Amino acid sequence: MSASVFNHVKHLQFEARPDGPDAAFARRLQDALGGRWGALTVANQYLLQGWTCRLPGKYRDLLLDVGTEELAHVEMLTTMITRLLQDAPLTTSETEDNPAECAEIYSAHLVQAGAGPLLADSNGLPWSGSYVTASGSLLADFHLNVGAEAQSRLRLARLFHMTADTGVKQMLRYLLARDTMHQNVWLAAIEELRADGIEQMPVPEAFPDAAPEADYAHTYLRFSAGDDAPAGRWADGPAPDGHGDLSYRSSAPPQGEPPALPPADPRLYCS
Amino acid sequence: MSASVFNHVKHLQFEARPDGPDAAFARRLQDALGGRWGALTVANQYLLQGWTCRLPGKYRDLLLDVGTEELAHVEMLTTMITRLLQDAPLTTSETEDNPAECAEIYSAHLVQAGAGPLLADSNGLPWSGSYVTASGSLLADFHLNVGAEAQSRLRLARLFHMTADTGVKQMLRYLLARDTMHQNVWLAAIEELRADGIEQMPVPEAFPDAAPEADYAHTYLRFSAGDDAPAGRWADGPAPDGHGDLSYRSSAPPQGEPPALPPADPRLYCS
Amino acid sequence: MSASVFNHVKHLQFEARPDGPDAAFARRLQDALGGRWGALTVANQYLLQGWTCRLPGKYRDLLLDVGTEELAHVEMLTTMITRLLQDAPLTTSETEDNPAECAEIYSAHLVQAGAGPLLADSNGLPWSGSYVTASGSLLADFHLNVGAEAQSRLRLARLFHMTADTGVKQMLRYLLARDTMHQNVWLAAIEELRADGIEQMPVPEAFPDAAPEADYAHTYLRFSAGDDAPAGRWADGPAPDGHGDLSYRSSAPPQGEPPALPPADPRLYCS
Amino acid sequence: MSASVFNHVKHLQFEARPDGPDAAFARRLQDALGGRWGALTVANQYLLQGWTCRLPGKYRDLLLDVGTEELAHVEMLTTMITRLLQDAPLTTSETEDNPAECAEIYSAHLVQAGAGPLLADSNGLPWSGSYVTASGSLLADFHLNVGAEAQSRLRLARLFHMTADTGVKQMLRYLLARDTMHQNVWLAAIEELRADGIEQMPVPEAFPDAAPEADYAHTYLRFSAGDDAPAGRWADGPAPDGHGDLSYRSSAPPQGEPPALPPADPRLYCS
Amino acid sequence: MSASVFNHVKHLQFEARPDGPDAAFARRLQDALGGRWGALTVANQYLLQGWTCRLPGKYRDLLLDVGTEELAHVEMLTTMITRLLQDAPLTTSETEDNPAECAEIYSAHLVQAGAGPLLADSNGLPWSGSYVTASGSLLADFHLNVGAEAQSRLRLARLFHMTADTGVKQMLRYLLARDTMHQNVWLAAIEELRADGIEQMPVPEAFPDAAPEADYAHTYLRFSAGDDAPAGRWADGPAPDGHGDLSYRSSAPPQGEPPALPPADPRLYCS
Amino acid sequence: MSASVFNHVKHLQFEARPDGPDAAFARRLQDALGGRWGALTVANQYLLQGWTCRLPGKYRDLLLDVGTEELAHVEMLTTMITRLLQDAPLTTSETEDNPAECAEIYSAHLVQAGAGPLLADSNGLPWSGSYVTASGSLLADFHLNVGAEAQSRLRLARLFHMTADTGVKQMLRYLLARDTMHQNVWLAAIEELRADGIEQMPVPEAFPDAAPEADYAHTYLRFSAGDDAPAGRWADGPAPDGHGDLSYRSSAPPQGEPPALPPADPRLYCS
Repeated sequence: MSASVFNHVKHLQFEARPDGPDAAFARRLQDALGGRWGALTVANQYLLQGWTCRLPGKYRDLLLDVGTEELAHVEMLTTMITRLLQDAPLTTSETEDNPAECAEIYSAHLVQAGAGPLLADSNGLPWSGSYVTASGSLLADFHLNVGAEAQSRLRLARLFHMTADTGVKQMLRYLLARDTMHQNVWLAAIEELRADGIEQMPVPEAFPDAAPEADYAHTYLRFSAGDDAPAGRWADGPAPDGHGDLSYRSSAPPQGEPPALPPADPRLYCS
Repeated sequence: MSASVFNHVKHLQFEARPDGPDAAFARRLQDALGGRWGALTVANQYLLQGWTCRLPGKYRDLLLDVGTEELAHVEMLTTMITRLLQDAPLTTSETEDNPAECAEIYSAHLVQAGAGPLLADSNGLPWSGSYVTASGSLLADFHLNVGAEAQSRLRLARLFHMTADTGVKQMLRYLLARDTMHQNVWLAAIEELRADGIEQMPVPEAFPDAAPEADYAHTYLRFSAGDDAPAGRWADGPAPDGHGDLSYRSSAPPQGEPPALPPADPRLYCS
Repeated sequence: MSASVFNHVKHLQFEARPDGPDAAFARRLQDALGGRWGALTVANQYLLQGWTCRLPGKYRDLLLDVGTEELAHVEMLTTMITRLLQDAPLTTSETEDNPAECAEIYSAHLVQAGAGPLLADSNGLPWSGSYVTASGSLLADFHLNVGAEAQSRLRLARLFHMTADTGVKQMLRYLLARDTMHQNVWLAAIEELRADGIEQMPVPEAFPDAAPEADYAHTYLRFSAGDDAPAGRWADGPAPDGHGDLSYRSSAPPQGEPPALPPADPRLYCS
Repeated sequence: MSASVFNHVKHLQFEARPDGPDAAFARRLQDALGGRWGALTVANQYLLQGWTCRLPGKYRDLLLDVGTEELAHVEMLTTMITRLLQDAPLTTSETEDNPAECAEIYSAHLVQAGAGPLLADSNGLPWSGSYVTASGSLLADFHLNVGAEAQSRLRLARLFHMTADTGVKQMLRYLLARDTMHQNVWLAAIEELRADGIEQMPVPEAFPDAAPEADYAHTYLRFSAGDDAPAGRWADGPAPDGHGDLSYRSSAPPQGEPPALPPADPRLYCS
Repeated sequence: MSASVFNHVKHLQFEARPDGPDAAFARRLQDALGGRWGALTVANQYLLQGWTCRLPGKYRDLLLDVGTEELAHVEMLTTMITRLLQDAPLTTSETEDNPAECAEIYSAHLVQAGAGPLLADSNGLPWSGSYVTASGSLLADFHLNVGAEAQSRLRLARLFHMTADTGVKQMLRYLLARDTMHQNVWLAAIEELRADGIEQMPVPEAFPDAAPEADYAHTYLRFSAGDDAPAGRWADGPAPDGHGDLSYRSSAPPQGEPPALPPADPRLYCS
Repeated sequence: MSASVFNHVKHLQFEARPDGPDAAFARRLQDALGGRWGALTVANQYLLQGWTCRLPGKYRDLLLDVGTEELAHVEMLTTMITRLLQDAPLTTSETEDNPAECAEIYSAHLVQAGAGPLLADSNGLPWSGSYVTASGSLLADFHLNVGAEAQSRLRLARLFHMTADTGVKQMLRYLLARDTMHQNVWLAAIEELRADGIEQMPVPEAFPDAAPEADYAHTYLRFSAGDDAPAGRWADGPAPDGHGDLSYRSSAPPQGEPPALPPADPRLYCS
């Protein structure tokens, strides 16, 4: 097949075959597909960051490589969920030997999707475009991507311990390995951006913070009654942004007035 | 006033007084209040991370200090938006000298809120609890918090350039300074977690990746047609996670079979 | 036509004919149709409260009368919005004489709905089933209904001042009159419930509050630094619920311990 | 600690310690935290009403006192949910003795939140800023606040009967007592507003209803076929708004024409 | 009762009486009430299409007849759900003989709705106004309505197999029959539109497609690696739109350039 | 590049280059990207239908071909929107010559996305996974897909008339041509399903409707007062499903009783 913009190959990136059906786990796996930090989020986030990337070359390639790979993870997860739903009990009476298994079933898997996945999380909350951030700032987005992969890995690792199915475990292990690589990738990309002189911390670096308020950029203010916060790295020593030293203040006296609001337009009937 | 669990002081943390009304900018400022990465998000996120933090002491104090401070930022933003909406034109005919100013008005500010803010972004999308992540893993959450502050700073810096009102600019500058500090704080907290031996990258560090699939944790796979990706730090050299060397593969041959799905239960009437 | 369950008559309950088109106002009117406290909300809320009302007779009749009427208000609003959108400019160049009028246009009215209404508010937020409460408690729901009508009337009165179109103003005046009646109706229904001995304040009255904690049911606790709160009716005198006297405490010392949380299951990888 | 805008004390307002874990009940308790009428809603609603209150003094103090207290309730509920999730079974096989307990588990509590709460209701629906109303009219909002507390108390009282855990019951009893006080507070505040001559029913009182349509403000119209509605207080006698007498009409003949809509702009391709 | 705009009769359109309570099935039935393709969707969709229909006469009558009928289906479903929830167990201990039945309970049915329905699907996702499409094009909307009825019938038929309750089955059978009729109705209406010369396929027929790009209106492009697609009717023979012959191309070479994006405004701090 | 599961080529499927910037139109184009019936919806819908298709061979190939193509349309639209946002005015004062152009700007395009697209519609409503239906029934889904393409074409044709930019018009014309082909494809696929004997109307064909209620599958019931409905094809003649003749009834007498609901469990405090 000659090249079109996106090409799809029928083979899966990695096998997605459970030892047997498990409708209750199919529900839980929805978090890895359509949850806040699931595969749909990172696929869309990296592709959108790539399509809108203004720096041609390696950064754009990087984003489109990883984003396109995540589409293949979406496919693996939809395949796995469909297989886990095979022969799912339709009624309570069909699972008298294991009522709990029936009870955790996501009836929408059966009623809405005909024993297939939904683009939703394990609670049936539909995946939302608001989960995706492509801000135009590579450094801001790469930091967010590190966080996204960490959250994703955490969820996959927890799911790994919730099943004894070796086929499911093998797929989760593969997805965990790829997310480890993606964590590595975004951390390396942060290094690269700095090495290339494109952006430093804080994001955006270029904003002129040299006003009187700039002092507040390195001062820890206490708002909660514990006494342990000053023991942390965040209260003392050079700031991670390289622009000063951190300091600690045990209170944060207000600098603004108590606000007094004038009456509203009478046509709005405010009190 | 003696201490109760939360105490509120009527003074603002920092002044929130515009030079004059500007209903169009009031709308834009909603992104800083109720947008995906606005003050409501970080206030709720840090407080929830703090309340569920299982490590007593400095980390818990840190989260609750910063989270409580963000409540004061929410208050500053709601006050500023209310003041910017003072004397907002109710009809087009009231702004004949500047129709565009009227046109960008958020009529919901007037109709729903009586010339006050909404818990929503600049498009009227209500703030959502799904914006908040408190995963139970401090390292995963601190990385996400760095990303959140970077996204927040970026939006505040953009808004700074969209107004000439010195009162608004001063408040934005203060908020930017505090978010700079918060970026510093979360970066320092990541260092501290590592120094304390609590967690390393990748998150979670403890997951046993030593299966055959672990190889995939350090291999860059190409899915998009550019040639520039291998030039990046992510394709070569020691992995940021400290567990191996990164390598590059110019293609990613599928390892799974084309999936064949068996027929569904006939009572589901699938084709 | 003999009776079916719902019957629809083609005539409108009240005329919904503007003097002329006004696409910008059509947008604002969406708040009255599909906003949080618009006609869709009360129609669905009263019908659902009626359909699930366990007391046969007058209360059920009341809910179904008012709920069915609100369907007719939905129809009036959709008709008015469609007429206001007649001849709406499709492009900026078509409104060179009044660019602001064009600018406030809701392009979705044209692109999605073909110059018709959406089931959404003025920001394009779709109406949500979460706006509807039918709790099973008539007193709780009647109090909420009073609040709903007050919010609805407030919005209609504000919209009334945002247009000079006499046809629109006449319809809004009619809707305001009906919502006044509905406020009267729900206030009267609260009286009736009490007269019938069905429910008193607080809701639910029957819950046994006679534990040591019951003292807190009549004590005002101060959490914010102002000094004016004790001057109000809420801090002194007999409680509106008729079960005691209100008192004021100038502070609210915590009664719980600082929470210490045990470690989580290690398979969840919490810090 | 000297005063900052918000201060947080580590002690809880009231103890939040269950007798033992109960993951199924932890799920149900989410309704009290992040449900439509849960603690997050009232905390945000009262604070926003207070921050935008244009009347300085007692009403503003009142709103900020109660709103700030509700933040402490949010904290109690998040703490309780976290404790109820302690040692939650990760798999069905871990609860063979009580499969139902496992079955009602909210797997997102484990997978997404690491055995902690979400800002969502018991179905996993995220809390939404659309739940919060701050209209600028104190009377409209106080009536809504009465309704909110009634709905909240109702839910807490139902949850009270769904558990035998004495620690949970004690906390619920305390929350119920505080919500009783809050019902009292808002009812008293309605009295006070009237006594102060600020606002009367209907809301807004000031709107000029003296048009021909005003007759409809006191007329009950029948739309549903029952015969019992005229027996109610709403169909006869002086109107609660004090402006006339209520009357009943057994039918509601339409006053508008059947709407005829002109063709749309041909570029919209409407039929 | 003389005619008002909408009239409601207290009798149900068809009996909605289960043999006995079944709280687990009440949850599943929510999909038929407030799911994406449930009764609320079609009731609102047909009514909105009817109210905005610009062709007076038979098409408008048709839409309002079917839409009004669907309101009666909403009522039947809310009644059935309320009855299925009668005597629902409040705690696990009340269902020791059948823990699974308890486990599938929707606690929100009890806590939020007092043993009644919600305007939501079986996962607690609130019904959304975004489910409703009224585009202004009768042909586009009638095709969508065919699809809506097919999806609705499918869900009802699946639910039919999930219960042994004869009362529930009888109501589902009735609803299935009516949806069969509605499928017939919309298919007949498509024929009628064509016979009346109002609209043909594709929608909109009138758009001038005679540009060079028009060739793409009849060409099948291959993007996925299977070899079976050319065997289908879609790859050969006269096009269903009657405007040409279908052809097949085994690849889809890109016709656009790789996009190069210029730098953004520096005040946006994009990389 | 050798084959991986998804491959991405940097060239666009078709050129997406406007004559010049137009931020107001960039906003409107969001409906084609992330609206209810935009490219994100059909891309995800067809891919999910394909991945879960249980019939191997031509139907699966078809779904994956068209779904993969739609990903390329998503890319074209994101590119076009980014280019239209080039040099967008950041403040009102930057567009004094054309204030309306500024006024229709979507400030979130600038503040949130750094002059790039969002995964949302023109009102800022995020794209939702609930827009996607993959029911497991090919006939039900193919009918829905016809409807989806008709709705999509309608929106694109309307947008075509809202701009004079020849580059934008050319891209829209191409997308319209492809959607015409996709309408043809799904109509042909419906023919093919019937020719293959896989499924007929109504969906699902196999459901046993032969009960007494089956009569209702061919009877038109009147619920709204117009007299024109019997003139339509839907009230007379052979039913499109081929199973009988259509008939008309001028009224629909209720067949159910007025529902009487028993009292609820007293622990739910229902009235």
